Amino acid sequence: MPVHAAATRDYVTEHQQRFLDELKELLRIPSISALPEHKTDIERAAEYVAAQLRSIGLDQVEVIATEGHPLVYGEWLRAQGRPTVLIYGHYDVQPVDPVELWESPPFEPTVRGDNLYGRGACDDKGQIFALIKALEVLMRTSDGQLPVNVKVLIEGEEEAGGEAIERYVKEHPDRLRADAALVADTGMIAPGIPCITYGLRGILYTEVEVRGAAHDLHSGTYGGIAPNPLHALAIIIAGLKDAQGHITIPGFYDTVRPVTTEERELWRRIPRDPQELLQEMGSSDFFGEEEYSLLERMWARPTLDVHGIAGGFTGEGTKTVIPAVAKAKISMRLVPDQDAEEIEALFTQRVRDLCPKGVTVQVQAVHCGGWVLMPPSSQAIAAAAAALQEEFGREPVFIREGGSVPIVALFGSVLQLPTVLMGFGLPDDHLHAPNEKFYLPNFYSAIRSAAGFLQRLGE
Amino acid sequence: MPVHAAATRDYVTEHQQRFLDELKELLRIPSISALPEHKTDIERAAEYVAAQLRSIGLDQVEVIATEGHPLVYGEWLRAQGRPTVLIYGHYDVQPVDPVELWESPPFEPTVRGDNLYGRGACDDKGQIFALIKALEVLMRTSDGQLPVNVKVLIEGEEEAGGEAIERYVKEHPDRLRADAALVADTGMIAPGIPCITYGLRGILYTEVEVRGAAHDLHSGTYGGIAPNPLHALAIIIAGLKDAQGHITIPGFYDTVRPVTTEERELWRRIPRDPQELLQEMGSSDFFGEEEYSLLERMWARPTLDVHGIAGGFTGEGTKTVIPAVAKAKISMRLVPDQDAEEIEALFTQRVRDLCPKGVTVQVQAVHCGGWVLMPPSSQAIAAAAAALQEEFGREPVFIREGGSVPIVALFGSVLQLPTVLMGFGLPDDHLHAPNEKFYLPNFYSAIRSAAGFLQRLGE
Repeated sequence: MPVHAAATRDYVTEHQQRFLDELKELLRIPSISALPEHKTDIERAAEYVAAQLRSIGLDQVEVIATEGHPLVYGEWLRAQGRPTVLIYGHYDVQPVDPVELWESPPFEPTVRGDNLYGRGACDDKGQIFALIKALEVLMRTSDGQLPVNVKVLIEGEEEAGGEAIERYVKEHPDRLRADAALVADTGMIAPGIPCITYGLRGILYTEVEVRGAAHDLHSGTYGGIAPNPLHALAIIIAGLKDAQGHITIPGFYDTVRPVTTEERELWRRIPRDPQELLQEMGSSDFFGEEEYSLLERMWARPTLDVHGIAGGFTGEGTKTVIPAVAKAKISMRLVPDQDAEEIEALFTQRVRDLCPKGVTVQVQAVHCGGWVLMPPSSQAIAAAAAALQEEFGREPVFIREGGSVPIVALFGSVLQLPTVLMGFGLPDDHLHAPNEKFYLPNFYSAIRSAAGFLQRLGE
Repeated sequence: MPVHAAATRDYVTEHQQRFLDELKELLRIPSISALPEHKTDIERAAEYVAAQLRSIGLDQVEVIATEGHPLVYGEWLRAQGRPTVLIYGHYDVQPVDPVELWESPPFEPTVRGDNLYGRGACDDKGQIFALIKALEVLMRTSDGQLPVNVKVLIEGEEEAGGEAIERYVKEHPDRLRADAALVADTGMIAPGIPCITYGLRGILYTEVEVRGAAHDLHSGTYGGIAPNPLHALAIIIAGLKDAQGHITIPGFYDTVRPVTTEERELWRRIPRDPQELLQEMGSSDFFGEEEYSLLERMWARPTLDVHGIAGGFTGEGTKTVIPAVAKAKISMRLVPDQDAEEIEALFTQRVRDLCPKGVTVQVQAVHCGGWVLMPPSSQAIAAAAAALQEEFGREPVFIREGGSVPIVALFGSVLQLPTVLMGFGLPDDHLHAPNEKFYLPNFYSAIRSAAGFLQRLGE
């Protein structure tokens, strides 16, 4: 064990109860970014994070007001000649509905067994807090010095699709200039198996609106002659993907970069059991492109999913309305080398082509974020791998993830940064769902691993 | 003009303001049968109708409690040797959403020009009130006598698919025995053109529920392997009807009775202008079986419409959920000689056949009502035709309607009654929609026509 690793281990052991208590304090603040009534909580959470940064000795700590929720920034740039790391995370959380399914209240963090339960426990308060505590450990065990230069940028609207950080990054590339980014907002495939995520899917989120008559019609009177926007929408949605799950948008797959033989070989050795996956999902069967492996479908194949359909009557009882308007929320996960704008155009054209007569259709792209594919050979990733090996006693597994972290794509395109995605969530952590939790051994592993990573990067 | 017609005319003219005021009073009661929070209003509306029946001198007036909303009954059986007419209507109304589209509040009845605006103005409070006022007119102008025996049965759950009246009719055939039924819950094809409806479509209303995973999933993590019930539902719905509007359920059209050459010839002369129809609908185009005439499609062809799709996320913003469950409300209008049970079985089979793998589907028939096709030659219909000719100065047009009035089918099958469907709604009365109205000249025409009908039937 390197000398510094031993010092880190001792400090974490000595202070682990306080670390947990301070994390709980942050978890008690219901900083739900999507709900306007939690605006004050969002501000409290930002202030709490800023106070943490100040207390460990970062400079220039500030809560930056934006058009949306505030950003928290802090830096420590006194490691002359050493690399600079940009640390990113978010202090906002998802809504808690259905709240009646929580076994303990979402904002009363509760330890049961080895887990800490509460909204944000893992996503992302627990993970970002581990990075902050790693900085504290390094400071306190090295006479107030860090082994590298550090810039910390923590946002408050990751769960609400906010654009404040995007604008800030684009407008302040100089302030954020660094050599690598460190993001703890991803996961591990199983307890004890450290992972480095080198790929993420992008996202294109759209709203499709179909209009028929000028007002709602009665199906008794007009059934047989009236266009039905809900039926038209069903025809469109059914026409976007076949019954086997292949996306039928002409050209959609043209730019999909095949997974390399080497990568496929690596994935074959990843212990992700199909039966466990089904159990996780609570599903009797998978659905999708059967000619690809499950991991490839989750990580490297693009998808299309409809998330909701509005229009007409969905209450109790029977209403025989032919609605004037129907809307669907449809998103696509994009992979290398798909271009979001190009896909948007193909999607829009396909939707128009599928639209039956009697109605009109409009497509609006609401939100998009790029995919990420990092070369697994950079110096930063090597440092992360070594730190994880030290902590877990085994080589990390290199994985991709199916979700999208648009900020990582932005770090690449605007700041030309390689990003280390070293995450400590587990598949059963119930992100975005009731009973979200963080596996506490991973909280402490995260602190030690992040400290080890920064230490190695500074060597 | 027959002597009695003149007396009726004078009485209506003298009391027209009071009639309007009393109707407004009924319209102010928000008796929305589908919404449980309006239960008290339903009861108030029933009591108001009962009080009206009492005040004009009917016997045995009572508000009959049921498992659902109450029925109102009253009778006058002192016209020995004369026929008995069963008068039917409903005092409940549709919900008012979207309420922001109403130009005046739905339950503050407002006269603008020749129209009375308010929920229920036409459907059916205005129309049933005209029949009640016709009884008052006859009583007051004939020394407290009616020209025929009368039984009045008014229900409170027509708009909620309630079954109370069905049960009551089946359990009390003796109490309801009559020679003909009179129903004012239909319409006219244009102002000034009186209509007698001799055919109605039936209805089969279903709920289709598709289940995938046990809980909602995140499309980032599981997109590509998770079944999506909303997508499955879209495939099912799209598979029930082709892009030209033909229903693709095997056997669905097998028992459809063709319209006779004679009927088709009659319909050709009905002044229903396609451009006006489009304007009424606020639509740029029709949708449906182009090989049939518009009237045939509206009156004599069966249809299938989806009324709403629930599941997933339809709020503001972007949520990338793959829902565990999705549901659709789908109804079919049935025509002679389709059998609802047989169609339900064919529909269910087709839905199952269309359901893609990875999900399960369940079909539930929520509500059904039979179609009606009356021979246009009965004595009652002749009396109605004569009364309408007297009132409007022209022969009535014999039409079918595309809507369903299940009670009329029941009167035929259980009580063996021919029903006179003499309605006074206009195509632009916005039934079930914002800004529902009743054309006031039709309100008074309805009173005089109904009085004339009963008078003639008693001769």
